Amino acid sequence: MPFVNIKLTREQRPITPEQKAALIKGVTDLLVEIVKRGPKTTVVVIDEIDTDNYGIGGETVTVLRGRGH
Amino acid sequence: MPFVNIKLTREQRPITPEQKAALIKGVTDLLVEIVKRGPKTTVVVIDEIDTDNYGIGGETVTVLRGRGH
Amino acid sequence: MPFVNIKLTREQRPITPEQKAALIKGVTDLLVEIVKRGPKTTVVVIDEIDTDNYGIGGETVTVLRGRGH
Amino acid sequence: MPFVNIKLTREQRPITPEQKAALIKGVTDLLVEIVKRGPKTTVVVIDEIDTDNYGIGGETVTVLRGRGH
Amino acid sequence: MPFVNIKLTREQRPITPEQKAALIKGVTDLLVEIVKRGPKTTVVVIDEIDTDNYGIGGETVTVLRGRGH
Amino acid sequence: MPFVNIKLTREQRPITPEQKAALIKGVTDLLVEIVKRGPKTTVVVIDEIDTDNYGIGGETVTVLRGRGH
Repeated sequence: MPFVNIKLTREQRPITPEQKAALIKGVTDLLVEIVKRGPKTTVVVIDEIDTDNYGIGGETVTVLRGRGH
Repeated sequence: MPFVNIKLTREQRPITPEQKAALIKGVTDLLVEIVKRGPKTTVVVIDEIDTDNYGIGGETVTVLRGRGH
Repeated sequence: MPFVNIKLTREQRPITPEQKAALIKGVTDLLVEIVKRGPKTTVVVIDEIDTDNYGIGGETVTVLRGRGH
Repeated sequence: MPFVNIKLTREQRPITPEQKAALIKGVTDLLVEIVKRGPKTTVVVIDEIDTDNYGIGGETVTVLRGRGH
Repeated sequence: MPFVNIKLTREQRPITPEQKAALIKGVTDLLVEIVKRGPKTTVVVIDEIDTDNYGIGGETVTVLRGRGH
Repeated sequence: MPFVNIKLTREQRPITPEQKAALIKGVTDLLVEIVKRGPKTTVVVIDEIDTDNYGIGGETVTVLRGRGH
């Protein structure tokens, strides 16, 4: 029954529908396995964020990627 | 004064500006009516999520829609 | 099927379980009525926030309440 | 590098620190495995929500549990 | 180490990458200065929201802007 | 007018009401200065998270603190 929100950057090679489906399945299974919560109403929402809009350590991911991270 | 975030899928027929305005008005009124919170600084944010990015019960809404849900 | 998160302050007279149930029912019904989304997997989460932790216009709600708002 | 927020109810037998650690490890590993995002700055936040404050299908989890769900 | 999510409207003149970088730097510095939390794993995510999807006081920002606010 | 959510851990010496007020004022001012958004309806919500419930790099902050981080 849990709700999960995943935020990650939209990179030059964005994640595929297959990867999204695998993430949703994987997180839902993990919650069943570890906390025994029924999967039927488990909701997972993936937000893809522009690298200009995602900051780590005070810098945008655009800048971090430009430095080769 | 509350803050409300609504996440729903962006379907083939997306919700219209009129529906969004009605949702925002409706939720704001509901909060006044039930919890007596002044509406002036009530903020409502609607996130429209791709069906590939919204999972229920371990499957994406894209897959659920494909099966006729 | 939508997900809704409501954040409001925990005041001296906190909202009751009955008010929470009415909010959850009201928001779920509103989503059915306005955007025709099936209610079965609609999830509503209410976060009650200390007045020290909720700011409007640059001031905490504790301070605003202290001035009679 | 992603950010993950998990919201689940605080039940009579709350989840343990060990379960929380396993969830955090499991989600972080899943993101490495499926989307190849470096784990170092992956952040996972678990919110435990009172059953009065979590609604599914228009009813609080308190009410659903009372009916034996 | 904190996580910060900023939601603001996408206006006719959207905020620039430079403004986003300045926001991310500014918020990260503020957290170091006020709460002494190390900046290395501080994550800031900016969500730009359509004016139709952002409501204040029961009205969308589209409508508020149309009245000259 | 933006909405800001700050999530940080509740440490042995929790942040004080004065620090919370300074954070709320500081973030609101920063948004005025950088993106020229009127402060009147800017909302800032601070969530204090148990160190067991906050994970970085696959480990809880409880464990990281135990190793002297």
